[in-house]
Amino acid sequence: MKQKVNAAILIIGNEILSGRTQDKNIAFISSWLNAKCGISVKEVRIIPDIEKKIIENVLKLSKKFNYLFTTGGIGPTHDDITAQSISKAFKAKYEYHHEAYEILKKYYGKKKFNEGRKKMAKMPRGAKLIYNPSSGAPGFIIKNVLSLPGVPSILNSMIENCKRYLIKGLKIHSETINLYTVESNIAKRLGQIQNKYKKKVDIGSYPFFRLGKIGVSIVSRSRSKIILVDVKKDLIQMAKLKKIKKLDI
Amino acid sequence: MKQKVNAAILIIGNEILSGRTQDKNIAFISSWLNAKCGISVKEVRIIPDIEKKIIENVLKLSKKFNYLFTTGGIGPTHDDITAQSISKAFKAKYEYHHEAYEILKKYYGKKKFNEGRKKMAKMPRGAKLIYNPSSGAPGFIIKNVLSLPGVPSILNSMIENCKRYLIKGLKIHSETINLYTVESNIAKRLGQIQNKYKKKVDIGSYPFFRLGKIGVSIVSRSRSKIILVDVKKDLIQMAKLKKIKKLDI
Repeated sequence: MKQKVNAAILIIGNEILSGRTQDKNIAFISSWLNAKCGISVKEVRIIPDIEKKIIENVLKLSKKFNYLFTTGGIGPTHDDITAQSISKAFKAKYEYHHEAYEILKKYYGKKKFNEGRKKMAKMPRGAKLIYNPSSGAPGFIIKNVLSLPGVPSILNSMIENCKRYLIKGLKIHSETINLYTVESNIAKRLGQIQNKYKKKVDIGSYPFFRLGKIGVSIVSRSRSKIILVDVKKDLIQMAKLKKIKKLDI
Repeated sequence: MKQKVNAAILIIGNEILSGRTQDKNIAFISSWLNAKCGISVKEVRIIPDIEKKIIENVLKLSKKFNYLFTTGGIGPTHDDITAQSISKAFKAKYEYHHEAYEILKKYYGKKKFNEGRKKMAKMPRGAKLIYNPSSGAPGFIIKNVLSLPGVPSILNSMIENCKRYLIKGLKIHSETINLYTVESNIAKRLGQIQNKYKKKVDIGSYPFFRLGKIGVSIVSRSRSKIILVDVKKDLIQMAKLKKIKKLDI
């Protein structure tokens, strides 16, 4: 029987923390993990390119969750310190990975295989590769930590290659109902419905502004599709009682 | 003399963790804090709407950093539990804030001031208000924790009202040079330049793809504008030596 499997994401990068770059990897990884592997992301942290911080967070999060995904810091420059830091965290030697070295040598050609590029073949001893179909340099997995690059287009191209290392869990299904109303109009009844299903379903309500009209998206999430059908009935009944025009179901 | 002031951001919301919603608040808050207040964001966490997690993270991050900003969970529905949780974290009574109650009563009118809307006036005893020019319901500050809503347009309209509660720090200035090259071509020299300035400057390199050409943005960040001028000279000299066509400076 499938079980609950969870994960955390650790975004390593000053450019995200400073606000210079808008992160796009969190939503992508989290949606993919749930849809393709039934794995729920339970915590995300964004930290600077500082070795001590990386070590501390890798140890903490890899212990607390089934998987930890890191993004960023595995390129050729001085500020790319993820692989070294993870090596230190797990007390594994930081060294050339033979296969990664060969992949990169072939990708760049012997003459252009310079120091910076060679650096991308260095990882903790015992790591296995996550192949990179778009730009050569592989990511890696060691223990339950999967390290991916920070550039979204490259990360996206590699994500399918993580699958072979992951145990599949129970997918969380979701149902969304959009209502032309305001949250405070339905807050009380919504709380009652949430209470009725207790921990079997998570009901979230999110205001939206669309085409000059305001509304609320009600998102119900559960590991059981059957319960979601019942919740939906209750929500539609609530909308009828409150005389709310449904927008879409 | 101005000092270093830092902050953390705690994003509270299942919708961000699940990947359903793309967060926009991190980049906004972080850029605003640095530009307007000289405050650097040093850590971000995204956690679910679970009381225990909120309490744990509020206590940890508010202790570790000068300020903690929370976003999300201060609306009228059952899944909005930020204010209660912060009250519990600080062992403060969770009760109606007199001024917030009056603001909301006036905003909605006596007749439409229902239970859900009244809930938005409840906060930890001793909290001060962060006024909300766009939709009535205020945020609040207690100790060094500032709680803002999750809807970006509302948060954006409130951010200026946080200023009066914040001590100003030393702004971090930045300089960006975009070069038509790949990271591995400049990695070695870039590392040497970083090393020359040690902790006085942070040099980050970020690949980009623009108009079909690839390049690298080199971002130098420092509290001293004078050092940034020197770093820029070194970077331009590096580009000349490497015969790199500069894109823009």
